[in-house]
Amino acid sequence: MNPFHADKGKNQNVRLNERYTGLANEINRRLATFPLSQIPSGLYEPIRYSLIAKGKRMRPILLILVGESLGASREKLFPAALAIELLHTFTLVHDDIMDKDTQRRGRPTLHIKWDDNTAILAGDALMTLAFRTLMQTKSPAISRMGVEFSQAMLEICEGQAMDMEFEKRSFVDAEEYLQMVGKKTGKLLGLSCVLGALIADPASESIADLADFGLKLGQAFQIQDDCLEITSDEQKMGKSLFSDIAEGKKTFPVIQVLADLSVEKRDSFLSFLKQNSDDRAIIRSEFEKRGALEKSLFKVRQLLNEASDLLSKMPINVQTELSDFIQTIYLRQS
Amino acid sequence: MNPFHADKGKNQNVRLNERYTGLANEINRRLATFPLSQIPSGLYEPIRYSLIAKGKRMRPILLILVGESLGASREKLFPAALAIELLHTFTLVHDDIMDKDTQRRGRPTLHIKWDDNTAILAGDALMTLAFRTLMQTKSPAISRMGVEFSQAMLEICEGQAMDMEFEKRSFVDAEEYLQMVGKKTGKLLGLSCVLGALIADPASESIADLADFGLKLGQAFQIQDDCLEITSDEQKMGKSLFSDIAEGKKTFPVIQVLADLSVEKRDSFLSFLKQNSDDRAIIRSEFEKRGALEKSLFKVRQLLNEASDLLSKMPINVQTELSDFIQTIYLRQS
Repeated sequence: MNPFHADKGKNQNVRLNERYTGLANEINRRLATFPLSQIPSGLYEPIRYSLIAKGKRMRPILLILVGESLGASREKLFPAALAIELLHTFTLVHDDIMDKDTQRRGRPTLHIKWDDNTAILAGDALMTLAFRTLMQTKSPAISRMGVEFSQAMLEICEGQAMDMEFEKRSFVDAEEYLQMVGKKTGKLLGLSCVLGALIADPASESIADLADFGLKLGQAFQIQDDCLEITSDEQKMGKSLFSDIAEGKKTFPVIQVLADLSVEKRDSFLSFLKQNSDDRAIIRSEFEKRGALEKSLFKVRQLLNEASDLLSKMPINVQTELSDFIQTIYLRQS
Repeated sequence: MNPFHADKGKNQNVRLNERYTGLANEINRRLATFPLSQIPSGLYEPIRYSLIAKGKRMRPILLILVGESLGASREKLFPAALAIELLHTFTLVHDDIMDKDTQRRGRPTLHIKWDDNTAILAGDALMTLAFRTLMQTKSPAISRMGVEFSQAMLEICEGQAMDMEFEKRSFVDAEEYLQMVGKKTGKLLGLSCVLGALIADPASESIADLADFGLKLGQAFQIQDDCLEITSDEQKMGKSLFSDIAEGKKTFPVIQVLADLSVEKRDSFLSFLKQNSDDRAIIRSEFEKRGALEKSLFKVRQLLNEASDLLSKMPINVQTELSDFIQTIYLRQS
């Protein structure tokens, strides 16, 4: 299977987009009405703030697409779908503290609107709510789901630790980068697919391939996001522009440039980026001149092709859903 | 049942202390050899540091005492026992960041030895490891255990939020204090008993009473700890002396004094405490003069009596274990 070969036409894309938007709206509705106590308000107000943020809700959508295409009812899938989004929200809240990001999804980050302590605690509670919600799933595979869920969370922590460690280094190779974003982003997309399948069919033979599929998708998505940080405008991204580059993050385009430089020149390139992190045009032209964006987008396509290849062994319904998902959600962003 | 009526004699206490120490040693051994990856070292070194800290391991001991007295094997209980201690360790790591505590269990706190980001992330991973370990329990009640576990975690977050809110107020009444420490400390002791019972017998009729028993025990323990902060020396406590008082925490003895003061005099008493928080003698004599320690220890005894009363409806083995536990662990500290 190749997600690029089939041009399903404009109508088909419109129809799929409407379907995903409908799903996202349903998830948003359930997040906005998620049952939470009123007090202590110092805990629950920030949590509510984080839950009504705009988001693409890709992870719960993915879980529902996989679960439904394997025969589970939407109602049965919703606790795990919400749990995935709660978990994702927790990681954003804590990552924003650690990365000192000030904007997220077009609004001040939680630790900016309140303070670090409030954000630490709200994140902890979100993680807890994620578990509690997951545990409400009626499934004979509930223990395995709990283990997969916490294993994914642990790898997200590992990915964040690697990311912070990489900031202090002057060189990171593409392999290390892929491992880091695989843990930080890919693992959760894989978990979304895996949970959908486990709820539908605990004996599904596609579990391992679905985990790998999510991994590749996450790696592709993160590289695409790294490129968008350079090429897109701030409003569209909804987060501080070049904040990653200013922080010394080794994004994929940065790594592409570093790999072509001698050891001595790497530090001066990283200094150049930090010094010019408020000048969009300079940064962008520097990356374009060095072909770093082109190489990065080539890697995105390669990873998406690998993800697509993994689909071929899966039941046909899952193949169709997931290749539509890649085509509609991923390609429209690039 | 009354934990104070039965003077079981010195030999009995020595025997029980040896038994608890043996259990604590076994828990310590399993924590010290807890399977963890080596990399990323920025994540796992601080986690290992937190796991080898000295601790009384009261929570896993309580879980094992209840579970064994209801017929579960120790091997079956160990995953949940470790999960409880991992969860407790997570709360200490994050609370120490929020409370800016510099010493814990006789060593620098994690955010002091490393930094805030490292401590946030290590705490997150500890919470995740707690859940993953819990999920390894073989039990038909595993979903309920997961819900009870995350509900307790959520209430711990609520308790911490209340604690931080109280710091900013000039008055807190005893009822509010008991609710806060019930969530922050009592809930987890209750969870320890509840999980032990659920693993031994998912249909146990003692679950609700065990949760209440733990709640009272936790409240008693926290008030006792508040008193020890005033009367004990730093080395014995293993944490910064008067740090709670310096931070403006409304500990139980503080509340006893505040309740006797007019509204106008409360702020000046709190200022007095902050200004003199490095002078042990002055602080201690102030509390003694006002009878605050005496009133606090009276409340401890009252709560322990209430906890004991709850035991009367439980199976005799549980009654014996838990009243021994109160007598041996609690009374030796006061």
